[in-house]
Amino acid sequence: MSQQQAVLAVSTVIFALRSDPTTGISTVWIPVVRRIREPHEGRWALPGGPLRVDDDLEEAARSHLLETTGLTPKYLEQLYAFGKVGRSPGPRVVSIVYWALVESDEAARATVGENVTWLSTDELPELAFDHNLIVDYALWRLRTKMEYSRIAHAFLGDTFTLAQLREVHEAVRQKPLDPANFRRTIESSKTVVPTGEFVTGARHRPARLYRYDGSIDLADSGPLQ
Amino acid sequence: MSQQQAVLAVSTVIFALRSDPTTGISTVWIPVVRRIREPHEGRWALPGGPLRVDDDLEEAARSHLLETTGLTPKYLEQLYAFGKVGRSPGPRVVSIVYWALVESDEAARATVGENVTWLSTDELPELAFDHNLIVDYALWRLRTKMEYSRIAHAFLGDTFTLAQLREVHEAVRQKPLDPANFRRTIESSKTVVPTGEFVTGARHRPARLYRYDGSIDLADSGPLQ
Repeated sequence: MSQQQAVLAVSTVIFALRSDPTTGISTVWIPVVRRIREPHEGRWALPGGPLRVDDDLEEAARSHLLETTGLTPKYLEQLYAFGKVGRSPGPRVVSIVYWALVESDEAARATVGENVTWLSTDELPELAFDHNLIVDYALWRLRTKMEYSRIAHAFLGDTFTLAQLREVHEAVRQKPLDPANFRRTIESSKTVVPTGEFVTGARHRPARLYRYDGSIDLADSGPLQ
Repeated sequence: MSQQQAVLAVSTVIFALRSDPTTGISTVWIPVVRRIREPHEGRWALPGGPLRVDDDLEEAARSHLLETTGLTPKYLEQLYAFGKVGRSPGPRVVSIVYWALVESDEAARATVGENVTWLSTDELPELAFDHNLIVDYALWRLRTKMEYSRIAHAFLGDTFTLAQLREVHEAVRQKPLDPANFRRTIESSKTVVPTGEFVTGARHRPARLYRYDGSIDLADSGPLQ
């Protein structure tokens, strides 16, 4: 190839739910990596890097995710290829971006290195390159998929309470939802199945645990499955 | 860049409706280009080629479409990046694929060169590389979008009869639809608006022309619009 060829990179937007230690409200967080060289030295960027010639695209996304956070995603999907001329100073870079959902319990175990941190998508600073646009698009895709698929379950463990499921919806939609309305909507959708188990706590009455109906796909990606 | 870098290409799946000259039934067709060199010499392939370093991705898709068919699409969207190791013999190729819809009237005016033809997606031969998989995925995306957006209108002119709109749905869904049911569904969806005009023909009673409601997007692509 001539030196005119664009550089091909793979990056990943990794979503997990985290609750604010002071308010207790959950929001959607992403891990980011500090740029340790120019361009945009010092700014936060999405985890990623150049595509190695013997890595499949999805494999590359998974390994960046593992190297950065030690995490294995419950859901991983290709988002979009970002390739505008001039989106990065210097040689042209075309980034094939994936997005991933990580279970909250697993996200809490994420390893965090010296140059890695988690940021709430509700209050993102200016990221490197066009990464704010990329995160906005990934959030839009997540919200859209939540309307017509069971994708919310990828944030949760095998069983969960309706309050936990509502917390996911509230975080993604960035607004509080009425508990009684939410319960009615979920129960009539028949996507979750009550288990015989309950969570008990000192301050609350027991909450029923649910699981999702295994016959329903998390999300439909057609003939590429 | 080292010679280990993958080659980046842009290809486009271009859909148009064409009716079979004998049966009169419309199906979804795509233009394809004959490979004039190895690998897969002689087979049909999607229009495309290597990304030039100063072309934006969408610009590259549009110019391949124009060069191959002389057509300007009414709808163009990024489909997916196909990059499996070994999908092409020789140097690794990562293809960023777009899909486009072309109006039937315009498609009829397409220029066809010596090594270009149109094929019905109902009866595709074995195409070069993984292009059959790519076409399957693009068809799946088209069908899915038809369920929740006004994308069908991109095949049609500014005004159309309900019979013409039904023809689009029948071609994409590959099955005949009951005219009375179809009319009820469309009328209750309130996505099309009757005009004061009618089409008259010698053998049929006049058919009302409709236009789509301009306030409704063809398809929603979020913050990338």
